[in-house]
Amino acid sequence: MLHEILDSGLVAHVAVVDDDGQPYVIPVAYARDGDSVLFHGSTASRLFRGLADGRPTCLTVTLLDGVVFARSAFNSSMNYRSVVVLGVAERLTGDEELAALERIADHLTPGRWTQARQPSPKERAATLTLRLSLDECSIKVRTGGPNDDDEDVQDPVYGSIWAGTLPLREVFGTPVPDQYSAGRAVPASVQAWER
Amino acid sequence: MLHEILDSGLVAHVAVVDDDGQPYVIPVAYARDGDSVLFHGSTASRLFRGLADGRPTCLTVTLLDGVVFARSAFNSSMNYRSVVVLGVAERLTGDEELAALERIADHLTPGRWTQARQPSPKERAATLTLRLSLDECSIKVRTGGPNDDDEDVQDPVYGSIWAGTLPLREVFGTPVPDQYSAGRAVPASVQAWER
Repeated sequence: MLHEILDSGLVAHVAVVDDDGQPYVIPVAYARDGDSVLFHGSTASRLFRGLADGRPTCLTVTLLDGVVFARSAFNSSMNYRSVVVLGVAERLTGDEELAALERIADHLTPGRWTQARQPSPKERAATLTLRLSLDECSIKVRTGGPNDDDEDVQDPVYGSIWAGTLPLREVFGTPVPDQYSAGRAVPASVQAWER
Repeated sequence: MLHEILDSGLVAHVAVVDDDGQPYVIPVAYARDGDSVLFHGSTASRLFRGLADGRPTCLTVTLLDGVVFARSAFNSSMNYRSVVVLGVAERLTGDEELAALERIADHLTPGRWTQARQPSPKERAATLTLRLSLDECSIKVRTGGPNDDDEDVQDPVYGSIWAGTLPLREVFGTPVPDQYSAGRAVPASVQAWER
């Protein structure tokens, strides 16, 4: 379940806390690699440098699966799957860093790494790549229909309304070529992109 | 733009930092109300009580709009719109709290509040409702196609591959009635649910 959730998400939300105790939450691309998550940012980012310096972090991935319409406002909810990972991230360098960059690229754009130009030394220097162990993590999942109170189900007014769930999912549209790619065949890696 | 992003999202990621400096990032339902965001959680949650006690927080909403396939791994990216709000949340009580609960319900399940049973005193006591001002916030948006380096566009190998974007959006499926609602008409508020 843990791996499935992480492998299905596209964006993680990562926290870092500054010297004044102010947290920041930023969206990042990521990938799971065995029992770690990998993510990257800019070396120009103060927040990312803070993570590389060993500040405690939290990385959360949330997949929203639906809206739950209960008979009471209190029991109305969302169906979702989420993973919260706590720890201190480790900055990767050298071959480990390159392998991590490939892994992140393969998660977001499967099969693209070998087609596209790989990072130059200058680009590598501008990128801060981090690994966070999954050792300390928790999973929260809500599935299924509303959990209404018995009294609400039996109530003549609230018991008579429709209750249930409205499923929600992410879908991809038609690929949009850039100005140089019009008429070129869309690679299988782009067309096949589905989660 | 700020309001549009917040009004289009369904889930926010909220951070709170414990006494040891460990941040936690949790997904929450929320709604915008004027120049504030409202969100709620359980009074049983240590993290939510920390927010009510005035710990600094960060609330981030991210809308993912697409995957960007560039000619280099470095320039590959995602299209997204995100809002990061910093500050200290204020716990709402009494009529302000009730109005906030209605607002959050109306954001997630438009039109449902007046149909469903509204919160009982016991449910109100179990709910911690917070308001966070939008005074200190930042917006980040990426749109459009890949920003490739000129050398990559002109390169005989990398310049010849397809580059562009794959749009991404959330869609709703067919409403799923619960065990008591089979055959009942799906309310317009559920059917019309679109963002």
